[in-house]
Amino acid sequence: MIKVGIVGASGYSGSELLRFLANHSGKLQVALCTSETYAGQCIESVLPNLRGFLSSKFEPLDLDSLKARVDVIVLAVPHKVAMSFAPRILAQGLRVVDFSADYRLGDADTYEAWYHAEHTSAELMQQAVYGLPERYREQIRTAQLVANPGCYPTSAILAAMPLVAQGAVALDSIIVDSKSGISGAGPKPSENTHYPNRESNVVAYNIGTHRHTPEIEQELSAVASETDVRVTFTPHLVPMTRGILSTVYMRLTEEMSTADALALYGRFYENEPFVRVLPSSAYPQTKSVLGSNYCDVGLEVDTRTRRVVAMAAIDNLGKGAAGAVVQNLNLMFGLSETDGLKVPGMMP
Amino acid sequence: MIKVGIVGASGYSGSELLRFLANHSGKLQVALCTSETYAGQCIESVLPNLRGFLSSKFEPLDLDSLKARVDVIVLAVPHKVAMSFAPRILAQGLRVVDFSADYRLGDADTYEAWYHAEHTSAELMQQAVYGLPERYREQIRTAQLVANPGCYPTSAILAAMPLVAQGAVALDSIIVDSKSGISGAGPKPSENTHYPNRESNVVAYNIGTHRHTPEIEQELSAVASETDVRVTFTPHLVPMTRGILSTVYMRLTEEMSTADALALYGRFYENEPFVRVLPSSAYPQTKSVLGSNYCDVGLEVDTRTRRVVAMAAIDNLGKGAAGAVVQNLNLMFGLSETDGLKVPGMMP
Amino acid sequence: MIKVGIVGASGYSGSELLRFLANHSGKLQVALCTSETYAGQCIESVLPNLRGFLSSKFEPLDLDSLKARVDVIVLAVPHKVAMSFAPRILAQGLRVVDFSADYRLGDADTYEAWYHAEHTSAELMQQAVYGLPERYREQIRTAQLVANPGCYPTSAILAAMPLVAQGAVALDSIIVDSKSGISGAGPKPSENTHYPNRESNVVAYNIGTHRHTPEIEQELSAVASETDVRVTFTPHLVPMTRGILSTVYMRLTEEMSTADALALYGRFYENEPFVRVLPSSAYPQTKSVLGSNYCDVGLEVDTRTRRVVAMAAIDNLGKGAAGAVVQNLNLMFGLSETDGLKVPGMMP
Amino acid sequence: MIKVGIVGASGYSGSELLRFLANHSGKLQVALCTSETYAGQCIESVLPNLRGFLSSKFEPLDLDSLKARVDVIVLAVPHKVAMSFAPRILAQGLRVVDFSADYRLGDADTYEAWYHAEHTSAELMQQAVYGLPERYREQIRTAQLVANPGCYPTSAILAAMPLVAQGAVALDSIIVDSKSGISGAGPKPSENTHYPNRESNVVAYNIGTHRHTPEIEQELSAVASETDVRVTFTPHLVPMTRGILSTVYMRLTEEMSTADALALYGRFYENEPFVRVLPSSAYPQTKSVLGSNYCDVGLEVDTRTRRVVAMAAIDNLGKGAAGAVVQNLNLMFGLSETDGLKVPGMMP
Repeated sequence: MIKVGIVGASGYSGSELLRFLANHSGKLQVALCTSETYAGQCIESVLPNLRGFLSSKFEPLDLDSLKARVDVIVLAVPHKVAMSFAPRILAQGLRVVDFSADYRLGDADTYEAWYHAEHTSAELMQQAVYGLPERYREQIRTAQLVANPGCYPTSAILAAMPLVAQGAVALDSIIVDSKSGISGAGPKPSENTHYPNRESNVVAYNIGTHRHTPEIEQELSAVASETDVRVTFTPHLVPMTRGILSTVYMRLTEEMSTADALALYGRFYENEPFVRVLPSSAYPQTKSVLGSNYCDVGLEVDTRTRRVVAMAAIDNLGKGAAGAVVQNLNLMFGLSETDGLKVPGMMP
Repeated sequence: MIKVGIVGASGYSGSELLRFLANHSGKLQVALCTSETYAGQCIESVLPNLRGFLSSKFEPLDLDSLKARVDVIVLAVPHKVAMSFAPRILAQGLRVVDFSADYRLGDADTYEAWYHAEHTSAELMQQAVYGLPERYREQIRTAQLVANPGCYPTSAILAAMPLVAQGAVALDSIIVDSKSGISGAGPKPSENTHYPNRESNVVAYNIGTHRHTPEIEQELSAVASETDVRVTFTPHLVPMTRGILSTVYMRLTEEMSTADALALYGRFYENEPFVRVLPSSAYPQTKSVLGSNYCDVGLEVDTRTRRVVAMAAIDNLGKGAAGAVVQNLNLMFGLSETDGLKVPGMMP
Repeated sequence: MIKVGIVGASGYSGSELLRFLANHSGKLQVALCTSETYAGQCIESVLPNLRGFLSSKFEPLDLDSLKARVDVIVLAVPHKVAMSFAPRILAQGLRVVDFSADYRLGDADTYEAWYHAEHTSAELMQQAVYGLPERYREQIRTAQLVANPGCYPTSAILAAMPLVAQGAVALDSIIVDSKSGISGAGPKPSENTHYPNRESNVVAYNIGTHRHTPEIEQELSAVASETDVRVTFTPHLVPMTRGILSTVYMRLTEEMSTADALALYGRFYENEPFVRVLPSSAYPQTKSVLGSNYCDVGLEVDTRTRRVVAMAAIDNLGKGAAGAVVQNLNLMFGLSETDGLKVPGMMP
Repeated sequence: MIKVGIVGASGYSGSELLRFLANHSGKLQVALCTSETYAGQCIESVLPNLRGFLSSKFEPLDLDSLKARVDVIVLAVPHKVAMSFAPRILAQGLRVVDFSADYRLGDADTYEAWYHAEHTSAELMQQAVYGLPERYREQIRTAQLVANPGCYPTSAILAAMPLVAQGAVALDSIIVDSKSGISGAGPKPSENTHYPNRESNVVAYNIGTHRHTPEIEQELSAVASETDVRVTFTPHLVPMTRGILSTVYMRLTEEMSTADALALYGRFYENEPFVRVLPSSAYPQTKSVLGSNYCDVGLEVDTRTRRVVAMAAIDNLGKGAAGAVVQNLNLMFGLSETDGLKVPGMMP
């Protein structure tokens, strides 16, 4: 039994992790939940869906007492905070999974260019493993520090990876148009998450500047064995709470039918427990994966314009956050990779 | 291992049952799924959230071959159809759980008055057990035929029952104002379920004539040991897919504070695994129970008008349908009552 | 041409008033828009739907310069603030319409009991006219100070008034169950208006303590020529931006069919330009009045329980706020009562 | 006073046209509303938002009696039906505005390739004027037959046109990713419009085969003075009733900053009453134009990838359908182009 501590457990990623762990066989046990905002309060009064599941309270964080209580820490705190905690936790011999962006990028320069902040533990960036099992499964098993991927990058990379790996698309042609539910913005109320502002409303944001861009580029570059894949990435907010659909446009460099491309995807992901390649003319929809750790992938080749339109749907809080953490924890501790995760999406 | 057959498995109740059973320990196994509409098609192509969970196909119904394949049949077909199937299934020695309304009422006259249809197997109405474990747990264990309660009645009865049982409210004062998501209308498209008609729209329907009315009255009468409790019941459609909030108004016949009433509810439901009585000033919200088998109950005494406002929130497809079926199946076959059901609601 | 100044014009009531006035014949002209938050900013950059309609800027409020610029001030500020402004504006000889609750109640004691705040201009409470034209049309024409009704009271009063006036219902039997869109909470982000908290969610709030209660009671008491009608009022939030449906339950004291009751309502409202009594079995839906100044009223008599279920649907920002202000301004300044308001709701 | 007849007035385009005309000065008068489904029924009972606005009934269509009653016919019927009516109406000397696709394309071959139907009045295709005033204002004034543009094309063309006209983008680089509300599918219930299927769900459809593709290509080709601009077009359904946001990706062939591009758009549209070019970093949102005839356009140059991301937001039933018809009717009959259309979008 692995004792898991969650730092920042009252946010959306943290509380969704609690929800996923309620479905786990029990080999991962929640041993500690900290919250700055709610320390001292019952978890079930703050998170009413978990009433009856957890009788404990949110605790204040005591960074130096962690070793005695847990085997692994999941950091569910904002970037910059994560990098101020991770080194001290790792120094105690604890393993860490970090929800934030602090250890996703391979070098501090890129981080600082996109996050406009100094990286104070750059030496750990190279050690950290990017927590996408579909690419780094073996490294995750032994990693001390796993950087859980961003929600947009998970969807974009899984949609594009097979064709990029195959060398079948022009690397300067990749455009990622993503549609996201509002929960991606977190639990803190703001104008952007105000119900009347989001209902019946679709809008793009952070065009050309969204911080998930370098993460997508880094991973697709690695897949392509290139150093500088550049993508145009446009995130949009759509009126729903959960879910991301990323529509990825790529120009084919070789002739390929939809069936050919789907066959390629099928082979590429055939051993992946959580990537489902849809059959021809079935397109991914966010509701199919709602609340789950699944990523549905589909595509269509537009022969008229010689482009492939590849799509991936995830729950941004599931495969895009807490589900991926459970998958990573399972791998890190030698458990069944799918423990707690064979839960279907909720339809309707 | 109990082999479960689902007749009409492609509808919302049936497919939600498949989703719930995917979380079960495995002691309930889906052995047969029939569908008139989709017979011959892969389940996972019709229900994309279940892709990877069920490799079998929907089958046509062969009423006479059931015994060889299953231990119990869940009827997920419309009323009137259910009563044409149930006797033939029971005659094979199989037990039956019926999602429909055909066996919920105790007598054919009431049925015919509200459903405007002849009841063709009235003799089974008395044998059938109303599948509300909070009231009929022991009878359910041994029942051959369980009539799964309607979604509105589940919420209304659970909200009102403790005070009615206590004799603390005027029996002619009960008003049930329910707000329901759209999935209650089932998977068949209609004007009433057309997205543009329901979005940004709240409307009442079937005032004074909704068929769940006699079901609420029958059960509250039984609780009150009276024969003729009458309720005013007004269902409303609100713009969401799942969830019912029933707000129940009752006039108190004795002085009682909110704390008193909550204490009464707490005692009444203290051994119930799926009814959660909320603390003072925390009101039930449909999202807390989304996708789950929980019913959250809360209340407020309005001392100015000497009324209690009791509220219950359920997922109409969970505790209001498929979750209740799993709970009933667990009871009928001596399994842990909570197997497959200790799954929290999905927030946010 | 009447020059209108709006104090607090960037909030939902104020900006909706600007939207309504864009449809006016021009006899009401916006001459001044103040905003504490946005003073100095272009209106059209803050309110993007109004781009191209207003080239002016939000101004800071200078209470003493108003007379020179406007004929009437609409106060779109919170309660307590309104009562600190109104006397100084009236003293300049300007007429005032107040969106807030400060002058809706007839006496300071009731105000203080429900609003937990001292009323600092109690002497104006009696002078103020409650701005419900369906009841106080003649008084509004000559009023110096009009208190625009609350959104919930408008719907509840219009639903109940004909039967209460007729003396056909038991005055101690009135229950108002209201379902409201989220915009009623205003433009300030909060946990209550956070998109993920409200989507797929229905919940009651402020049971027994909502501040619109005494307003409903005061007006229904006046209609009944009684002094102490008490109502149970339960507001609920439902997942939509605009709209209120109030379902009002009353026990009939005389025999009456649905047709009889509808005929009574038809006569009662026959000269009302903005109350539409629906025919039998057509129930009010919030979408029919979306964005408009209409109130749709319908009802059903539940003969089994001898109750009438009367319903009213309004747009809380239309007839429930800004539309009513335009109607009141038209009356106060001798314009056509319907000027700017003969705009249908938006369906679908 | 121009007498307008609407054939197929109960559908979404037709009923929205009735709503727009309720705001008109009266120079356009509704003289005839036909409906196959609702002939003989009161308009206000079918379209409850219009209660009190129209006392007439839907009539059956009598193609040969039109001349006596109206000056112009608006065809709000499906494609294929439109082409069977238009020639007979034009032959009576009446002018026609057609909501359908039948006369939007310049040649029958393209029509038949995309619509898989024979074009039975190909000779009128060349006469018909494409009803986009921003491009064909003068031709519309005198046209006998105006083909009202599709909703997606309106948004895509208005977003792309200035840069295409300028020759500043690679013509083989254009990708249109559109997000649409559900009302685009019309009032007929279907699986695609079933509330539970669309709520919390985003999905692409008809990739590479959507029939609005050739319309976008035809018009952008004309703007570019090329014959064969090809675009990749991916429409998506998002959970809202109204609104389209089209995100258009184009590769720049010359260096250009966001400010440069916006200045170009500002000049291009400076005399357009219904195209609003947003300032830098303000992106179009569908809610700003809800219910209106406005199209909000904005853009961002992604200098890293040398692409421009241009966006346009419209209400698919407003500028994308009925609003455009009113604008075209105003032009055709020498009225003020903006009559009935200076109505702001509805926020929140």
